[in-house]
Amino acid sequence: MAEQHHVAILTRGRGSLEITDDIAALVRDSEHRHGLVNIFVRHTSCGLAITENADASVRRDLETLMQRWAPDGDPAYHHDMEGDDDMAAHARSLLTGVSLSVPFADGRLLLGTWQGIYLFEHRTHGLRREIVVTLIG
Amino acid sequence: MAEQHHVAILTRGRGSLEITDDIAALVRDSEHRHGLVNIFVRHTSCGLAITENADASVRRDLETLMQRWAPDGDPAYHHDMEGDDDMAAHARSLLTGVSLSVPFADGRLLLGTWQGIYLFEHRTHGLRREIVVTLIG
Amino acid sequence: MAEQHHVAILTRGRGSLEITDDIAALVRDSEHRHGLVNIFVRHTSCGLAITENADASVRRDLETLMQRWAPDGDPAYHHDMEGDDDMAAHARSLLTGVSLSVPFADGRLLLGTWQGIYLFEHRTHGLRREIVVTLIG
Repeated sequence: MAEQHHVAILTRGRGSLEITDDIAALVRDSEHRHGLVNIFVRHTSCGLAITENADASVRRDLETLMQRWAPDGDPAYHHDMEGDDDMAAHARSLLTGVSLSVPFADGRLLLGTWQGIYLFEHRTHGLRREIVVTLIG
Repeated sequence: MAEQHHVAILTRGRGSLEITDDIAALVRDSEHRHGLVNIFVRHTSCGLAITENADASVRRDLETLMQRWAPDGDPAYHHDMEGDDDMAAHARSLLTGVSLSVPFADGRLLLGTWQGIYLFEHRTHGLRREIVVTLIG
Repeated sequence: MAEQHHVAILTRGRGSLEITDDIAALVRDSEHRHGLVNIFVRHTSCGLAITENADASVRRDLETLMQRWAPDGDPAYHHDMEGDDDMAAHARSLLTGVSLSVPFADGRLLLGTWQGIYLFEHRTHGLRREIVVTLIG
């Protein structure tokens, strides 16, 4: 039987928040010992990614690149109702993705040493973000 | 037991087609009440993405950005047997991805209010696209 | 019950290695006949993608584009401890992703005719890469 949890996270504006410990706790407390955990954000202007957890400059440089890939306030955008970061956030969300599956065994995530799971807020202001965590054994 | 369905979709050339209702119907009719549904396209020149379902200009702007990320007919490409959109379509497919997992509960997709599931056709002409939908409870 | 395998792959520097046959063999030998196989790389500077398996120039052109999307040695990067390819590799990893799920049935991957599963090494030197393969039926 799949096991599901709803988690709410308050972001503080554009940038990444590590959620590895939140997911690890759900995995540790699950009846499933081996399987996959899927993390899904119910939004179109934030995203999920696994990246290096040691040097924070990696995530800062990723922000620099995302600003190139999807510039805020680009004159080509038609969708700008909610401001300069509106369409850029949707495009960043496409690139990072909103669904991520990670294997676990013996109640522990099988992440590599340098991997952390991050929620990337792509809007410039903080928001309440809902995540669905599904464990399948 | 995993449950699988094969769905064929006729695209009308480059652009996005919403498939949320097709997936929601398979989830509603499944014996699994809670779990994950995986959507997989069996092609290398189209893709799947979740993005905003309210204002169609979001998807128009995504097309504008994809044209920048992977321009049609770029002189650097070696792979152009099937025309200017050939290599660009493979690159767009890498960026959007071909596999997407979405949680469901009580027979309903746990999408957020503004999330729709889209098949992105990256070739300029319409094609018959095969999708495999796998439900795991 | 989920079934898990650990696979180590030696890369030979930047570029793609096809791992379709490795995954297909694990699927063929599994007790699960239908389901999903998830492939997960335990690293932040390589990635996984499904792309065309017929003409190798597709993967060469993808490398050209990735070099544009995340140039080696970009002066804007702060993270460069391990050389010019360090930050570029993390950014490429974000774009390709580290987790990929593929459906299977009757002990066979449900890939399309032209789809291959590739490990993309994003560092310029070869490394030992660990992959976790999880089968869920």
